[in-house]
Amino acid sequence: MLKALFIDLSGVLYEGNKVIPGAVAAIEKARASQLQLRFVTNTSRKTRDQLLNDLKNLGFELQEEELFTAPVAVHGWLQEKKIRPYCLIHHNIKSEFADLLQTDPNAVVIGDAEQDFCYDKLNRAFQLCQQGAVLVGIGCNRYFKLDGQLQLDAGPFIKAIEFAASTKAIIIGKPSKDFFLQALASTGLSADQVLMIGDDIYGDIEGAIHSGLHAGLVRTGKYQRGDEHKISAAHLTFDSIVDAVDYALLEQIKH
Amino acid sequence: MLKALFIDLSGVLYEGNKVIPGAVAAIEKARASQLQLRFVTNTSRKTRDQLLNDLKNLGFELQEEELFTAPVAVHGWLQEKKIRPYCLIHHNIKSEFADLLQTDPNAVVIGDAEQDFCYDKLNRAFQLCQQGAVLVGIGCNRYFKLDGQLQLDAGPFIKAIEFAASTKAIIIGKPSKDFFLQALASTGLSADQVLMIGDDIYGDIEGAIHSGLHAGLVRTGKYQRGDEHKISAAHLTFDSIVDAVDYALLEQIKH
Repeated sequence: MLKALFIDLSGVLYEGNKVIPGAVAAIEKARASQLQLRFVTNTSRKTRDQLLNDLKNLGFELQEEELFTAPVAVHGWLQEKKIRPYCLIHHNIKSEFADLLQTDPNAVVIGDAEQDFCYDKLNRAFQLCQQGAVLVGIGCNRYFKLDGQLQLDAGPFIKAIEFAASTKAIIIGKPSKDFFLQALASTGLSADQVLMIGDDIYGDIEGAIHSGLHAGLVRTGKYQRGDEHKISAAHLTFDSIVDAVDYALLEQIKH
Repeated sequence: MLKALFIDLSGVLYEGNKVIPGAVAAIEKARASQLQLRFVTNTSRKTRDQLLNDLKNLGFELQEEELFTAPVAVHGWLQEKKIRPYCLIHHNIKSEFADLLQTDPNAVVIGDAEQDFCYDKLNRAFQLCQQGAVLVGIGCNRYFKLDGQLQLDAGPFIKAIEFAASTKAIIIGKPSKDFFLQALASTGLSADQVLMIGDDIYGDIEGAIHSGLHAGLVRTGKYQRGDEHKISAAHLTFDSIVDAVDYALLEQIKH
């Protein structure tokens, strides 16, 4: 029986600064039920505080402990292992990594660095990895949608450095199983009691299925016509978060 | 019996503006023998004319028909197929592609674009491929050596766009078999009569072996200690082009 919803943020609850129609009411309905909610995101353009604040402004009230972000998970991992990163990350979240020693780097961290993805900085990242630095990806998303257009996310740049330096990145965030299991542990549930709802066929859907969760693809955000046929494993599809929540509530009544 | 040498340029004959010690004399020795010579390069920072001129200044006299460059092969392919490319290439060779119609592109061409590898241009390349444009790589080299340091070549950026747009690039240049066979056709020989000499384990060595040629890795240029152990197929190794030519001449005498 379904006991929790894991929900992706961008493209599921909102797109840019626009709320997906019905999303605020859907989350309120879900919250009024027995379902546990977790919000699971690779977003690496905002700090956790900015994210909570922006969500509040859009009408979504989240508890800090409900929110699992890839940058926070990466930061925790670096801190625990006392690793000195060279950070190719968005300027908005540089403050979140500022407490880590970053001289003489022995790791390269790649997030959605946007304009920081330039030849000189990518070259530096490559040279460090070639000399043995660990490559860490804040998620491995292919693209996201902004201003109506698909834009390159961190994943392609991670693949570029992997190829150049003949190395394999450690991915922290979706679709990494560890990341899903970290969010799962906070619920006390088993994987098959959880439905992950997302718009990314690789990060959200395949990642969740690979981690033992159920998965539902929404046709909002970065969804492209035909995406559902690119996933071989069994999954659900919904027009939006509204239908996904209705489905979950109906499943509750059935059992 | 060995009847031709295919020789890579950068890292084999010279490094930056410095001739590899003994390389000029080695090429002269090879030229005085019965061996046919071809020069096979992915270099995409110089036009063919600039390359011939620079080689002349370094002491290497090449005939135009001995030189096979990846950008020229790509240009010929685009021209033949009447394809309109969006070119992410080095500013030095933009003139070589200027005769092609480039409005409303239906292809993306990626060479060693250096500083042109920025987020906005890579994003544009991705969006075009996502909309169905063909992705074409001028070779697929991982890195090259400049000023004593390894630098990112076109390959990693091709891999980035391949991953982002879930597509597969057409590679023209090394390690593509078509490219080796084009040079081979000009000799009238069979593949096993040719030795490819290069410093790139992927582009030169594996590419040549895959095309049926013999291959010899030189320990100059981008060669890194241990590179020879990364190649599973049988190949030769030489300290430099000097030893490689001596080996080839000795093979001539033996037969």
